[in-house]
Amino acid sequence: MAYDTDNIFARILRGEIPCHRVYEDADTLAFLDIMPKADGHTLVIPKAAATDLYGAPPEALAATIRTTQRIAAAVRKAFDAPGIMIAQLNGAAAGQSVFHMHFHVIPRYAGEDFRMHVGPKADNTVLAAHAARIRAALE
Amino acid sequence: MAYDTDNIFARILRGEIPCHRVYEDADTLAFLDIMPKADGHTLVIPKAAATDLYGAPPEALAATIRTTQRIAAAVRKAFDAPGIMIAQLNGAAAGQSVFHMHFHVIPRYAGEDFRMHVGPKADNTVLAAHAARIRAALE
Repeated sequence: MAYDTDNIFARILRGEIPCHRVYEDADTLAFLDIMPKADGHTLVIPKAAATDLYGAPPEALAATIRTTQRIAAAVRKAFDAPGIMIAQLNGAAAGQSVFHMHFHVIPRYAGEDFRMHVGPKADNTVLAAHAARIRAALE
Repeated sequence: MAYDTDNIFARILRGEIPCHRVYEDADTLAFLDIMPKADGHTLVIPKAAATDLYGAPPEALAATIRTTQRIAAAVRKAFDAPGIMIAQLNGAAAGQSVFHMHFHVIPRYAGEDFRMHVGPKADNTVLAAHAARIRAALE
């Protein structure tokens, strides 16, 4: 998917649209999501043009995760959040709505519904076949 | 939180417990989640001891996101997935159940329930105050 230079985050980076900035350095910008899943929900983006994770330049990706690490610690502290979820969505089917790569930093509290490691455990034979499929796709 | 050298991923790294391995290099390992949220759900971990994102060594974090990028492309291809979600959970309150940092790579399909950018839009004054709180926590 080609990068759209008029996506909303590109416009924020150009200063055409305001944002609630929390951090900025030479390679990255962090600002609040205006439709927060929880108070303190922050987005971290590279300044480089990158539609999604697949084609993100290595330096931009490294800088973005580095800033995400910093922001996660800051959001945890600022909101006294016992949990922090990092999420990064690729493709409309995954819920991506702005096509400039971004990492969500979201405070999480016990008792919420989004859990990863809840059953059922998958069949071992099925898992083996799936692992083989991904290994093949890596080649 | 101190790193527990007997956590299940540490034991997988030591070869004490089997896994459905999809990729390995000097710094990282990728293998299937045995309780997949979707077929092809893969975990990417650093070989270095890191409980969570907060204290992950910079080199380990950089290597892990680099491998995650590769695995995301491979899982997308292997499962013809229109969307890929990356998730990384910190703290039991966020749903972290194994205390060795890991990135989830999860195929996503349209119509599923987990969405990020759905309203309502937050109050601007509230957002401004929250941004200030995070900036202060960065110092």
